[in-house]
Amino acid sequence: MANFKGHALPGSFFLIVGLWWSVKHPLKYFYQKEKSNQLTHHYQRLEIIEAAIRTLFSVIGILAEQFVPDGPHLHLYHEDHWVKLMNWQHSTMYLFFAVSGIVDMLTYLITHVPLGLDRLVMALAAFNEGFLFYYHVHNRPPLDQHIHSLLLCAVFGGALGLAVEVVLRDNIVLELFRTSLLLLQGTWFWQIGFVLFPPFGGPEWDQNNHDNIMFVTMCFCWHYLAALCIVAASYSLVYCFLTQVKRREDREVIGIQKLRSDHTYRKALLSGSDEE
Amino acid sequence: MANFKGHALPGSFFLIVGLWWSVKHPLKYFYQKEKSNQLTHHYQRLEIIEAAIRTLFSVIGILAEQFVPDGPHLHLYHEDHWVKLMNWQHSTMYLFFAVSGIVDMLTYLITHVPLGLDRLVMALAAFNEGFLFYYHVHNRPPLDQHIHSLLLCAVFGGALGLAVEVVLRDNIVLELFRTSLLLLQGTWFWQIGFVLFPPFGGPEWDQNNHDNIMFVTMCFCWHYLAALCIVAASYSLVYCFLTQVKRREDREVIGIQKLRSDHTYRKALLSGSDEE
Amino acid sequence: MANFKGHALPGSFFLIVGLWWSVKHPLKYFYQKEKSNQLTHHYQRLEIIEAAIRTLFSVIGILAEQFVPDGPHLHLYHEDHWVKLMNWQHSTMYLFFAVSGIVDMLTYLITHVPLGLDRLVMALAAFNEGFLFYYHVHNRPPLDQHIHSLLLCAVFGGALGLAVEVVLRDNIVLELFRTSLLLLQGTWFWQIGFVLFPPFGGPEWDQNNHDNIMFVTMCFCWHYLAALCIVAASYSLVYCFLTQVKRREDREVIGIQKLRSDHTYRKALLSGSDEE
Amino acid sequence: MANFKGHALPGSFFLIVGLWWSVKHPLKYFYQKEKSNQLTHHYQRLEIIEAAIRTLFSVIGILAEQFVPDGPHLHLYHEDHWVKLMNWQHSTMYLFFAVSGIVDMLTYLITHVPLGLDRLVMALAAFNEGFLFYYHVHNRPPLDQHIHSLLLCAVFGGALGLAVEVVLRDNIVLELFRTSLLLLQGTWFWQIGFVLFPPFGGPEWDQNNHDNIMFVTMCFCWHYLAALCIVAASYSLVYCFLTQVKRREDREVIGIQKLRSDHTYRKALLSGSDEE
Repeated sequence: MANFKGHALPGSFFLIVGLWWSVKHPLKYFYQKEKSNQLTHHYQRLEIIEAAIRTLFSVIGILAEQFVPDGPHLHLYHEDHWVKLMNWQHSTMYLFFAVSGIVDMLTYLITHVPLGLDRLVMALAAFNEGFLFYYHVHNRPPLDQHIHSLLLCAVFGGALGLAVEVVLRDNIVLELFRTSLLLLQGTWFWQIGFVLFPPFGGPEWDQNNHDNIMFVTMCFCWHYLAALCIVAASYSLVYCFLTQVKRREDREVIGIQKLRSDHTYRKALLSGSDEE
Repeated sequence: MANFKGHALPGSFFLIVGLWWSVKHPLKYFYQKEKSNQLTHHYQRLEIIEAAIRTLFSVIGILAEQFVPDGPHLHLYHEDHWVKLMNWQHSTMYLFFAVSGIVDMLTYLITHVPLGLDRLVMALAAFNEGFLFYYHVHNRPPLDQHIHSLLLCAVFGGALGLAVEVVLRDNIVLELFRTSLLLLQGTWFWQIGFVLFPPFGGPEWDQNNHDNIMFVTMCFCWHYLAALCIVAASYSLVYCFLTQVKRREDREVIGIQKLRSDHTYRKALLSGSDEE
Repeated sequence: MANFKGHALPGSFFLIVGLWWSVKHPLKYFYQKEKSNQLTHHYQRLEIIEAAIRTLFSVIGILAEQFVPDGPHLHLYHEDHWVKLMNWQHSTMYLFFAVSGIVDMLTYLITHVPLGLDRLVMALAAFNEGFLFYYHVHNRPPLDQHIHSLLLCAVFGGALGLAVEVVLRDNIVLELFRTSLLLLQGTWFWQIGFVLFPPFGGPEWDQNNHDNIMFVTMCFCWHYLAALCIVAASYSLVYCFLTQVKRREDREVIGIQKLRSDHTYRKALLSGSDEE
Repeated sequence: MANFKGHALPGSFFLIVGLWWSVKHPLKYFYQKEKSNQLTHHYQRLEIIEAAIRTLFSVIGILAEQFVPDGPHLHLYHEDHWVKLMNWQHSTMYLFFAVSGIVDMLTYLITHVPLGLDRLVMALAAFNEGFLFYYHVHNRPPLDQHIHSLLLCAVFGGALGLAVEVVLRDNIVLELFRTSLLLLQGTWFWQIGFVLFPPFGGPEWDQNNHDNIMFVTMCFCWHYLAALCIVAASYSLVYCFLTQVKRREDREVIGIQKLRSDHTYRKALLSGSDEE
């Protein structure tokens, strides 16, 4: 889908998941600190729902790539040439993410699936995305090639982080790192769309201008900085929210205790007068 | 052995070992969970037999490479030129796998061989295979070079996983990862055979067509997905099999206990009537 | 800032931080060994001050890059071309170091920021510097390109070390390694200045002479050796200083105890005479 | 020193150290297993002597490179060109190994030097060797370049293994791995000498023949196999030797006990007769 929408759609998808992760992981971290076991059950249900939604979106992605008007409609080889290999490659990427979603669900649903497998398959899905992209962008104009290859930094960085998480599970630093790279991927897809297919009909970018390549490289760093800021903001908001919730609960508990102690006091008075 | 058989044979070998591993590792994992120490002895014998078979196959591979009609017959240098270097390189690959098999046997047979050495030597054998392949495929047509270099992903990935296993031994996730890469290698060897030497006399693939290269890249991902599915299926089958075996054993135990308790009951009745 | 000062300034900055670290880390290490908890508070204040200074310097760097006479003055795009992208890229590098400084401060000031995040962001700042440099030096004469790319060894090596520190925090060997690489970066910036922009008006270096490139490579090794020597010297000096301080304290303690015991002795004598 | 001796000398040096390590590490491993603390002192002295010898050899290497008849005699720059940069680069390599030797000595002599620093500096020395070699072999004929670049596998592999040892100290598998790579380096230096400077006046190798390059690649694998065999043989010999020593000691202990018990018996008899 070599147009603006074809980049905005996966970008939005990655952005939404990234934003959700930037809320989910701090939440889990703060609850784990307080060792509230009662929430583990709710948390697992949350993970299963998230994995199901990710699987669903991936399947929608596959169907979209196959059945858009100019898609391959599941035809792979026709009259001595391959049909719409680009769409097939995108379908393959989505397929791996769907498998990753299914394995995530299974890890939480079935107890005999070993922990860490979900992270391994997610790492493989990310690696696979990068692998296909790497061969995807050969033989293109310099700027196009460069702007896509920058994406590989985010993708392979994420795959590496996920592979480490197989061994170091539930490490908040690694989780925030992964979240920031996912957000970067999301915003960068939008950026690619804006650069290669200007949606508002602006002038096209000169594909061979070295200054453009230098700006795009720097712009990638800014995107990452923005991603880090989003993660930091989410983390702070979750912390403030949890602190407020706790304070209110404490106040209510104190209120109830006060009511109770008043009651006890009156009772004691009454029984005291009775005894008199 | 630049023909279909020359790729199908190692492919089958890797496939068989991969399938066996996809059964062995889940079995070990479930038994370890139940901490049944009595099975450790049987398991070690199994490992020794596997290593012996692997060594045997590697030796057969060396002999085949050397003594096929157009092989070098152990001649290395003859009349100012090297004799059949391809066959010699394949022999070298098999030699490392043979050494790895021997070290595996020794690790289980002799107690003073440090654990982890078997994984290190296996990682070296895999690295060696990739290393030779890397220099093997220079100066070939693009498709031939690409389809072989994809193999390197599986080989070096496996070597890396094995190197991590030196430190993190008996980690089921790493073992399943290694198994899936071995299966990938097996099926990919077959794929190479089908692409480069069509066995059923179909038309040859255009070696310089970029679309062919793109399809082959994507096809590699599908092969890996298939390998992951095989591993998942094996894992589930082993689990179901073990659960059923356990249930039957439990039933038998209950049956025996019932028989015994009936017997005791009757005895109690009899002795009761005696006492009367 | 493609002149001598433009390389001497960041070089001096890195050198100063490196020298400070070569004192700070041994100090922390020796205090941790003695488990003197009372110093933890002072140490944290020190870390916060250091991070604040680092942030300040980075902000000064950004302002300098933007508002030097031939700087971009915050203009990015003007009349169909990018304005002073070099300065913008340097600003971006400083920006990441400023963010790293802020995260360092937050980690020590706010208890709910997870440990390790400071190291991750510092690793990202280093990686970002290397990343921008990598694309920075394309299309330059061989010696210029080579002398800058050597810098990447120090930068990426430092980023890798910092990434390992996320998991292995407070490992003195990793900290000294990072310190030595920072010193190397500092001295190498000076070296680049001397080679590319001879400050004393000497003859220019031949950019295409292979011997020059070979010498520069070797010179880089010497710089690292010098950096290792500086770290070793600092480490020894800190050790000697702490040993002397301890000895003096011990002597004073002994002195006080002696005074006290003298006093007690006299008192005892007096009270003895009283009793008499 | 671009001649046969110039490759045979460092090769012999690496071989000797490798052979010594292949004895030292198994010895340490078996003694650690028996937890004989009394030997720790002897072992530390051994390490210090080894490090001293390594330092000495490195210094001799530096002096040889500088003061051979066609050496630079400590002149670096003379009449607008660099003097004998090859020799200077080799001196630099030796210098790092000398520093590594000194740090090894210090680690065992002075208690406040942190453990792991010796491995880090040794890893840096190995990395430095590879780093200089990498830029060393540019602009040479293909075979020359290839045969030297194969060396880099052994050098960087060793540096990586040593870097892991910083964290995982005293891991026998890593130590044997490092030993095998050192032996490989030793034998490969000899091989380079034989290929590039045939000592017995044979015909020169065709530098551009692809078959030669393929053979050399395979030959490198054989060298590594030989190195693995040497390590395995050393390990077994050390084990057999220690077992025999132990058996003899046990026999002597039994003999002494027998003598003693005989003596006691006779004494008992005598005292018995006395008592009679």
